[in-house]
This record gives sequence, structure tokens and C-alpha cells, in this order.
Amino acid sequence: MTQRVVVVGGGFGGALAARGLRRADVDVTLVDRQNYYLFQPLVYQVASGSLSAVEVAVPLRQIMRRHRNTRVVLAEVVGFDLGARHVVLDDLPNGARGIELGYDVLLVAGGSSYSYFGHDEWARYAPELKSLEGALDLRNRILLAFEAAEAETDEALRGAWLTFVVVGAGPTGVEMAGQIAEVAHTLRREYRAVDTRTARVLLIEAGDRVLGAFPDPLPRKAERQLRSLGVTPMLATTVVGVDADSVEVENGSGERSRIAARTAVWAAGVTASPLAAKLAEATGAEIDRAGRIVVDPDLTVPGHPNVFAFGDMVSVRGQQLHGVAPVAMQQGRHVARSIRSGRRTPFRYRDKGELATIGRSRAVGVVKGVKVSGFLAWALWLGVHIAYLIGFQNRVLVFTRWTFAYVTRGRGARVIHRRDRGGPATPTG
Amino acid sequence: MTQRVVVVGGGFGGALAARGLRRADVDVTLVDRQNYYLFQPLVYQVASGSLSAVEVAVPLRQIMRRHRNTRVVLAEVVGFDLGARHVVLDDLPNGARGIELGYDVLLVAGGSSYSYFGHDEWARYAPELKSLEGALDLRNRILLAFEAAEAETDEALRGAWLTFVVVGAGPTGVEMAGQIAEVAHTLRREYRAVDTRTARVLLIEAGDRVLGAFPDPLPRKAERQLRSLGVTPMLATTVVGVDADSVEVENGSGERSRIAARTAVWAAGVTASPLAAKLAEATGAEIDRAGRIVVDPDLTVPGHPNVFAFGDMVSVRGQQLHGVAPVAMQQGRHVARSIRSGRRTPFRYRDKGELATIGRSRAVGVVKGVKVSGFLAWALWLGVHIAYLIGFQNRVLVFTRWTFAYVTRGRGARVIHRRDRGGPATPTG
Repeated sequence: MTQRVVVVGGGFGGALAARGLRRADVDVTLVDRQNYYLFQPLVYQVASGSLSAVEVAVPLRQIMRRHRNTRVVLAEVVGFDLGARHVVLDDLPNGARGIELGYDVLLVAGGSSYSYFGHDEWARYAPELKSLEGALDLRNRILLAFEAAEAETDEALRGAWLTFVVVGAGPTGVEMAGQIAEVAHTLRREYRAVDTRTARVLLIEAGDRVLGAFPDPLPRKAERQLRSLGVTPMLATTVVGVDADSVEVENGSGERSRIAARTAVWAAGVTASPLAAKLAEATGAEIDRAGRIVVDPDLTVPGHPNVFAFGDMVSVRGQQLHGVAPVAMQQGRHVARSIRSGRRTPFRYRDKGELATIGRSRAVGVVKGVKVSGFLAWALWLGVHIAYLIGFQNRVLVFTRWTFAYVTRGRGARVIHRRDRGGPATPTG
Repeated sequence: MTQRVVVVGGGFGGALAARGLRRADVDVTLVDRQNYYLFQPLVYQVASGSLSAVEVAVPLRQIMRRHRNTRVVLAEVVGFDLGARHVVLDDLPNGARGIELGYDVLLVAGGSSYSYFGHDEWARYAPELKSLEGALDLRNRILLAFEAAEAETDEALRGAWLTFVVVGAGPTGVEMAGQIAEVAHTLRREYRAVDTRTARVLLIEAGDRVLGAFPDPLPRKAERQLRSLGVTPMLATTVVGVDADSVEVENGSGERSRIAARTAVWAAGVTASPLAAKLAEATGAEIDRAGRIVVDPDLTVPGHPNVFAFGDMVSVRGQQLHGVAPVAMQQGRHVARSIRSGRRTPFRYRDKGELATIGRSRAVGVVKGVKVSGFLAWALWLGVHIAYLIGFQNRVLVFTRWTFAYVTRGRGARVIHRRDRGGPATPTG
């Protein structure tokens, strides 16, 4: 009988694994709770109004359309039964729950999300910048903040509407802070009562530098580029409170202060998908401090040669890997190869480099070991991101938007959605 | 002192009036509760996943950016005080309410919406296809219906998920029905358990033909084109009930029947904006059966030469005009001319024709008095709609999407948003 391969998660890891099994003699079922593959590195551009949601999200069914051996199931995975060899699905679109899906080989790649350091109540005031929903919520909030500033006559209140706090100075936080600063600058001709260029963008980071994962001197260069855009990095600073109109921070000396800000963006504290803990519980595997399941170098769960886990939700024993897209993608391909060949071999990451953009003509990065910054790094960033977008149509659309943005310095995707009059903003595309 | 012109409504009428006042020696304030100008004729393509929300919605501030005499206010107009010459604004983005905005000349163009014939409770089950929110809600529902059908094993329930009821066979209803039929056809390769081509699309119309406002033989041709796409028109049929899993209808003989359908689209029963009734109350003007305020031929409210009302929310005394975009646009330009010249002259509509598309290479219409149908009408429809889109960028993006759709027969904007697991679908872009 043909082997049944169940892939849980349609992100970089899971989708690439499924693609790698296209011509294998196996039956593949790809399960995700979203109907789309999300190009996560560009999600922040949805929040800034540079791109529309559907330009960075491709339906999984469309990607798998020509995979005759693959079916896509829209559902939430809520349990693993490794004895009976099935996963339990909930929340199917027709309302079905508790559906058992049998497998011979199981692949789990549930990804990660930002964590609020145990303060989930902050999420209400500072949406996370990893999911499409979070980005769309943030887009609404950022655009409404400029509108509120325009309508506000009280100086102090207006200042709070024009203060944007970005928490976390990894690539996403840095890119978002840069985008907000650019948006504030480019919107200036559209408002009459306020000068949007007076907006303050504060980038809060617990570590002592921005882009801490990048080698020297790139963090310093990135910081300089951020300042040139009008972003104020606040280093060695931690967030100790967030509410509707302020963010409270503590500096290295233990002094606390309150920043009057109506808009906060969360891009810090990565934590693994809850699927990691569920899989660890079902298999007896270890969990590390970041909530990741510890897997063997061949990406199988210890003692379970037919269960693979990979991507952001795992820590590979003996390897220090960042939670970035190329790692998950290479792991997905590696797992597909292991299944096709029937052999389990250790995964080895081929590091081609990493790039982070800060704004127009500003970026830093390492490409094949060479450090780059400024316009060259920015051009490389553009090229790499266009190349890795799935679908020729999306490449054309995103290229078109970026070209217009470069020429006009404008932002094209700036619809504010309101569920009903006076109601709260609702996340939309 | 420079005259203060307040324009209420940033749709076709209001936005064109504001544009026409760009070089006039007046101060213009454009008030809308949405921050965008919506290209309403293409909203149904957002619902079908052909276009993204931001491709048919341009920020009003962006349109008015270079109008140095114009400011844009995001607010809801809740009252008119013609004695004191101010309008009352609520729901400003900073939370302000009851703000008075003075004017010397007032322009009101609040548009129209679909009405549920006094059954507003149906709106929950059959979203209207006029606003961007309604279209995004519908996109989610249509895509989820195919997903539910794929997950469903019970034959009858699956049939209900694959039955789509469109209420109202005006241009929007006809275009939407055609789009759903095409989507069902093009998705067939993406599903494994269901044949999406078995989907039924029912187009319910109280009148005895589709596109009743078009001259013979176009309604008959449109009906034939709809049937060739797989749409079943149900003429002389009225809706008497809508709930979560069915639509109840009554035919011309008074017989009632229940259609098992999980997805319904509302595109019938146009009613004027509530601003029409408010303005009539404030001025003593008449209201017609469709809730429209009756204005003089020069588009002023009787007895108030400094108050103009126009677009879908008015009936011009002695003229029979359809509630279509070209009428509102010409009226907006006419009002701007009247203000610039200081003279009140009767509005006369120059009818250049009307087109409705039914699907790929299928359309009907009248252009400068000549009836057209089929590929020619469809090509004209494409050209006209690209030409009237605001913004060169949107023209390029929409042209790109349509070209890809024509070549691949696919639909590019198919993200399903879910607020949280198992929760109801939320409107998004």
C-alpha cells in the first residue's frame, strides 16, 4: 500500500516538504488552519500599507494544484496519537471536530509566534507582527493614529497619537520601525492640521544593539541608518507594561518611565508553536526554553524514525540555527529527500546569508560571508524577496507596487476598515 | 472671506465635485466615514477573489493631496443645521463627537445601499454586495463554502455548501453570479473530494428578466450567456426568507419553496443613504418611495440655493435617472461648475451608455445608443473600467490581475481570514 504522509503546517517548512514529495510514490495530506502559504518576511509591509494582504499570501491549494498525490485539509491539529498513528483534527470548515487522520510518516512544522513574556493581555494593545491578521490590525491602527492626530486639537493627546513604539529590534522590528518613519514622512502632504513628520518612532530593544544576530559592524550601521530615517532606538530597555495609551519601559539602571503612545507594535520574544509541546508530550521528547522540541540531527523525533519535526518549532541537537525562512525551507526539502530515499541523514544548513532592510536604499546583511550595507544591500534584499515570492503574478504585482513606491514615495494599500460606526477597527486586507 | 464649501460623501458624486473645485477660490472640506474612494463597479470582483480590496479603494487623502484648498475629515455626519449653517460630525478617529462644521455652501452626496425589504435580519446570512466590508465578508464565505464542501461527507449537506444564491439580477447580481460560476469551474483542479463544477448558482429576480434596465434583446442575451456559464436564473421569484442554511422563495403563482444553500449574496432593493431623510427633514424637502430626496433640476434642495444634493440619494424633479456611477459623476462635476460660476443651471445627463459583464468574453451593453454583446461588449467593459479606475498604479495592478486571470483562468486573491479558531469569518482584504 502507498505510504500515507501527513504534513502538519503549510509554512516554509511544511510547504517545501510537500513540494519535495510531488513525484514521490506517497499519498500526501497537507494540513493547515489557514488556507494560505504566507510569505512571512514581507508581512510587515502589509502593516505599513506597502503591500496588500493577498500579495504575500498564496492559497495552499493553488500551490499544490498540480500535485496529484497531495490533498490539502483546512483544519486545526489538536492532538497526536503515535501509538494509533493518527493526528486529531478540529475546526474543519463544515464544523466537524475530532476527526482522526491516519499516517505512516508524520511531518510537523508548526512554526513560531511572538510571545508577550507571559503578558498576553498586552496583545490587545500591541498586535504582533507575524501573522497576516496581526499585520492587518496594525495597518488599521497606524492609519487611524494619523487620522486621530489630524482630528485632535489637544497638543499632548496629538503627541501620543503621533508616537509609535516598536518592541523588538530583530529584522522585523527594524524593518517596521523604518517603514513607519518613512510613511510618516511621505504622508506629510496629505494632512492639513498636523505635520506628520513630527511623528516619533521608538524602537525598544532589551539587548544592547539592533539586529543583534548580525555580525559587527552591521548592527552599528543599521542603527545609524535607522536614526537617519528618524527612528530612535532605545537599547538595553525592556517593556514592563502596555495599555491603550502608553508603554512603560525600564532601562538598564532599573529606572522606569512611561511613554505616551497610542500605537504599539510587537515583534519580540519568539516562542514555538504549541504543537511542539503537544508533540513532545506524545513522544517524551525534550522541550527547550523557547518551547521548541529537541530533534535528532536527521530531524526525526528521538525514538520515532517515522516522525519528523522541523522549522522554527524545533531545536536540532548539536546545532545552533536561527528561526529564519531559509533554515525551515532547507529542512523541509531535506525531510522530503529522506522520505523519497528511505534513508535518514543528518541535516546540514547551508548558510547563504541574511539581509535586513531598513528603508529606501538602506539595508545591511551578510551574503556568502561578505558583509554588505547601504544601497547594494538594499538592492540585493529586493531581488531576493521578489525571487522567493511564490507565483509569477505576485512577483509582478509586488514589483509594480515597489516601483511606484520608489518613484512616488507613496504607499498604495491604505484602506481603513471599520466594522461599524464607532466600533473598533477590524483586521482586514 | 473665502467661501467654505462642505462636501459630505467621498463617492463618485462627492469626490468629483471636490475635484472640480480644486482651482476655485473656496475652502473645501470633504467629509466621509471611510478613508477611501471606492470604485463600486468592481467591488463584486473583490468578493469573487479576482481583485484585492486595496485595488478598488483609493485613500481620499491621496486623491486630494494636491488640492491645497481641500481638507479631508474622517467622520460620520449625523445632522444638518441649515439655520446655523453647520453640519454635525460624530465618530471622529480621536473619539470626538458632536463637532460642528460650518459651511457657506453645502454639498450632500451620501449614495445608496441595498435594502432587505424591511428584513434587516437577513443581512447576517446574505451580506450585501455594495460596500467593501460586504464584499470581503462574501469572499470569505464563498471560499469557506468550497472548503466545507471538500470536508463534508454527507451528500445533502455537501449540496447545500455548493449552492450559491444571488438575490437581484441587476448588473451587480448578474456579474456576481457569473463570477461564482467561473470560480467554481476554475477551482476544480484544486479540490480532491468534490467536483466544484457541480456547484449550483441560482440568480433570483423578482422581475421577469435579468438586467431589466437594459433594452431588448440584451436581457435575453444576458440570460443565455448566464446559462452558458452554468448560472440558473429564477425569474418572477421573490425571496421570502433567509437563514443560515436556506433561502425561501415564492414564485409568480404564490408557491413557496425552500432552497438548501449555505451561501447567499444580496444585490437587490436599492435604498438611499439615511442622509437623504435627514436632509429632507432639515429642509422640508420631499422624499420618494426609494428614500431619495427630491431636488430641483439644478440639483439644489428646494428653497435652499446654497445646498446641493446629488448622486444615488436624490431624485431630480422631472428626470428619470438610474443610480449609476456616470450620473453621480456628471452631477458632481455640474455642482462644482455651478459653484465656480455662481450660477444655478439645470443638470442634463449625457448618457454614454451602460455595460454589464457576465463572465470571460461575455457582456452586454449599450454604447452611444448602439447595442453590443459578446466579446466586443466585454472588451469595451474592460477598457472602460480600467480607464475610470483612479490612479495609474491601480490600473497597472488590476490590468495585471485580469491578464493573469484570463490566461490561467485562476483567481489570485483568495485568502480566508478567521478571527480565531472556529470563530466566525471576519471581513478582510
